[in-house]
Amino acid sequence: MTTINDNFLKLQAGYLFSEIGRRIRFFEAQNPDAKIISLGIGDVTQPLAPAVIEAMHKAVDEMSKEETFRGYDDNHIGYEFLRNAISENDFKTRGVKIDIDEIFVSDGAKCDTANIQEIFGTDNVVAVTDPVYPVYVDTNVIAGRTGSANEKGQYDRIIYMPCTAENNFVPDIPDKHVDLIYLCFPNNPTGAVATAEQLKQWVDYARRNKAIILFDAAYEAFISDPDIPHSIYEIDGAKDVAIEFRSFSKTAGFTGVRCAFTVVPKQLKAHTKDGRAVELNPLWSRRHCTKFNGVSYITQAAAAAVYSKQGKKQCRRIIDIYMNNANLIRESLTKLGYQAYGGINAPYIWMKTPNGLSSWDFFDRLLTKANVIGTPGSGFGPAGQGYLRLTAFATPANVKEALERFAAVER
Amino acid sequence: MTTINDNFLKLQAGYLFSEIGRRIRFFEAQNPDAKIISLGIGDVTQPLAPAVIEAMHKAVDEMSKEETFRGYDDNHIGYEFLRNAISENDFKTRGVKIDIDEIFVSDGAKCDTANIQEIFGTDNVVAVTDPVYPVYVDTNVIAGRTGSANEKGQYDRIIYMPCTAENNFVPDIPDKHVDLIYLCFPNNPTGAVATAEQLKQWVDYARRNKAIILFDAAYEAFISDPDIPHSIYEIDGAKDVAIEFRSFSKTAGFTGVRCAFTVVPKQLKAHTKDGRAVELNPLWSRRHCTKFNGVSYITQAAAAAVYSKQGKKQCRRIIDIYMNNANLIRESLTKLGYQAYGGINAPYIWMKTPNGLSSWDFFDRLLTKANVIGTPGSGFGPAGQGYLRLTAFATPANVKEALERFAAVER
Repeated sequence: MTTINDNFLKLQAGYLFSEIGRRIRFFEAQNPDAKIISLGIGDVTQPLAPAVIEAMHKAVDEMSKEETFRGYDDNHIGYEFLRNAISENDFKTRGVKIDIDEIFVSDGAKCDTANIQEIFGTDNVVAVTDPVYPVYVDTNVIAGRTGSANEKGQYDRIIYMPCTAENNFVPDIPDKHVDLIYLCFPNNPTGAVATAEQLKQWVDYARRNKAIILFDAAYEAFISDPDIPHSIYEIDGAKDVAIEFRSFSKTAGFTGVRCAFTVVPKQLKAHTKDGRAVELNPLWSRRHCTKFNGVSYITQAAAAAVYSKQGKKQCRRIIDIYMNNANLIRESLTKLGYQAYGGINAPYIWMKTPNGLSSWDFFDRLLTKANVIGTPGSGFGPAGQGYLRLTAFATPANVKEALERFAAVER
Repeated sequence: MTTINDNFLKLQAGYLFSEIGRRIRFFEAQNPDAKIISLGIGDVTQPLAPAVIEAMHKAVDEMSKEETFRGYDDNHIGYEFLRNAISENDFKTRGVKIDIDEIFVSDGAKCDTANIQEIFGTDNVVAVTDPVYPVYVDTNVIAGRTGSANEKGQYDRIIYMPCTAENNFVPDIPDKHVDLIYLCFPNNPTGAVATAEQLKQWVDYARRNKAIILFDAAYEAFISDPDIPHSIYEIDGAKDVAIEFRSFSKTAGFTGVRCAFTVVPKQLKAHTKDGRAVELNPLWSRRHCTKFNGVSYITQAAAAAVYSKQGKKQCRRIIDIYMNNANLIRESLTKLGYQAYGGINAPYIWMKTPNGLSSWDFFDRLLTKANVIGTPGSGFGPAGQGYLRLTAFATPANVKEALERFAAVER
């Protein structure tokens, strides 16, 4: 008798975005003429930068000729031309030395943050923020690193670190011992950022406790404050304790193209059950090469173009469009009397629902009264209850219209 | 203290193809002028079909305009235009009904065959052929479904089913109970195929024993014999017991493009530890949507073009090139007095080494004397010892030259 992985049955009903999709489809079926504007799912809307388009056409043409055709990316971890560009532009410019064999190119930061836990033992204690990107939790549930969920949807054996207006949505150092710590700054969903001092406390905690930080920096391109670190490796000692995840999805509008990368420093170590130190870089390399077969050549050529002179300028312009949206959302909501956080160093605005409404009730009200979609904060954890996440990725015209409709919704 | 997944330490040194790469680089460093011809790694060499190139240019252009730009593939499992084309062309034409929500589009059959085991319990007994594609085994080792490897490189708790010249490289039904059975036909590495009668025995075994067959059909496009099934679902009852993996890598030269799909029939079930039947389709959907974020739109547009009238004709022409190579290799080797199998319904030729030479010794001899690369059969398992896998994916000119050099190597 073939058995299933019973851990799947512990997962809470419906992946958040599937449930949102279900409610939208239900509403659309009953209101076929409604023009829905989504400030919900974090998907981009601006077309790819011209430099990226040009690079892709060129790469497609290369694939049409025997002399320039490319098959497998043999080393699986990305072409050197791309890893060199990453090392130079994302790290060296910020005073951080990352070798190209510490960089693993992949098809998405979601996949990487989902898969990374596979190289760790199931006995590790996992700490996540509350609210949290559900992928960090669900993948640990599937791997058997948790017990069942309680009535709040929180899993036994996971340490949840509340992020609230009181701590500026940056979690306090836990008072219990934890082994694996997922941090995401700029944060999804709250839009909060961590200062160098705050990150240093985490690095110090990890060093003291032989813990490892899984640092999701997928939104670093949206940081506007020059004092906020873009990489955790800007903090002294972080290379001994942290893995970093980056993505082209939001930086360059690659949600429909699929490219990201993960940095695993060569000096980073964890331990066998009997206490022997083991380097994590070759472990992740083995996982990557065994269960993954590299990223499309055309996609990697497109990603490299993001680092060209024109590519940088054009991608910057696209990010500016989104950040103008973010500013507009934050300011408009504030004017309307709502409490709104984030949106300055991140494409996410974290708004408090009015009059203590639950996240889903406010979601439904916005959907039905304004035909605007947000993401219920409670979908990211109990501390997100009473919040809604709005994203800056819609077109400026849609953002403007959504905010006008917002103004007409009863508070 | 953060612990690693100790199962990684059970893995045998060096992923096969990494070791081959290492030996080639070593040889090249000492013989910089040698013109090496690879009949080793199963990578394609023919450029993409013109219909595919055209579809990709068109898709890239769509990504350059706001009106036609595509972000995330929201349902993660592939655009309907592609899943419809798959259902129609790969299954309906062969009398098999596969619904589009039974099809999961991904970035590679390697990834899918590697990831599929995650939905199953770690207590299942896994059966693989010997020789075997190493990914099936290594991913089960990583997941903790095995003990340690013995001196032959075989893992405790895995059932190995020898495929030899005696059984035409189609394994016998095991006499012990097994739960998860990996089968690959047309086979990598032996080039063997299974008849409908042979597959029926496996389906019947699985039905009797509540086992599940993981059927890798990545090479079905190379079948020339009209009586050989292309899909396991051509066998009555298979939908109750089998998951099938398909790929565009070899069918359409997509090794550097990355597209594949997996079929999980809705009627397929496995069991919780306490014996309750659970449908696997929603389980795989949950895994897919939690740890994966969909395939590039441009890639999916390219894959759909494979099913266009022109695309089919052009891809067929490319496969014919490879199959001419396969015939030439098989016939030439036979003329030279070697024993060669496969190469008729598969792009792989499985040749016996001369005079009882070990696989690696013959690999080294071919590399140094003829500058030709094969893949050591022993890298696929003990029953592959004394064999070398040759692939038909080189250019016709290179195949011809490699065979001429072959003729000069002492037998």
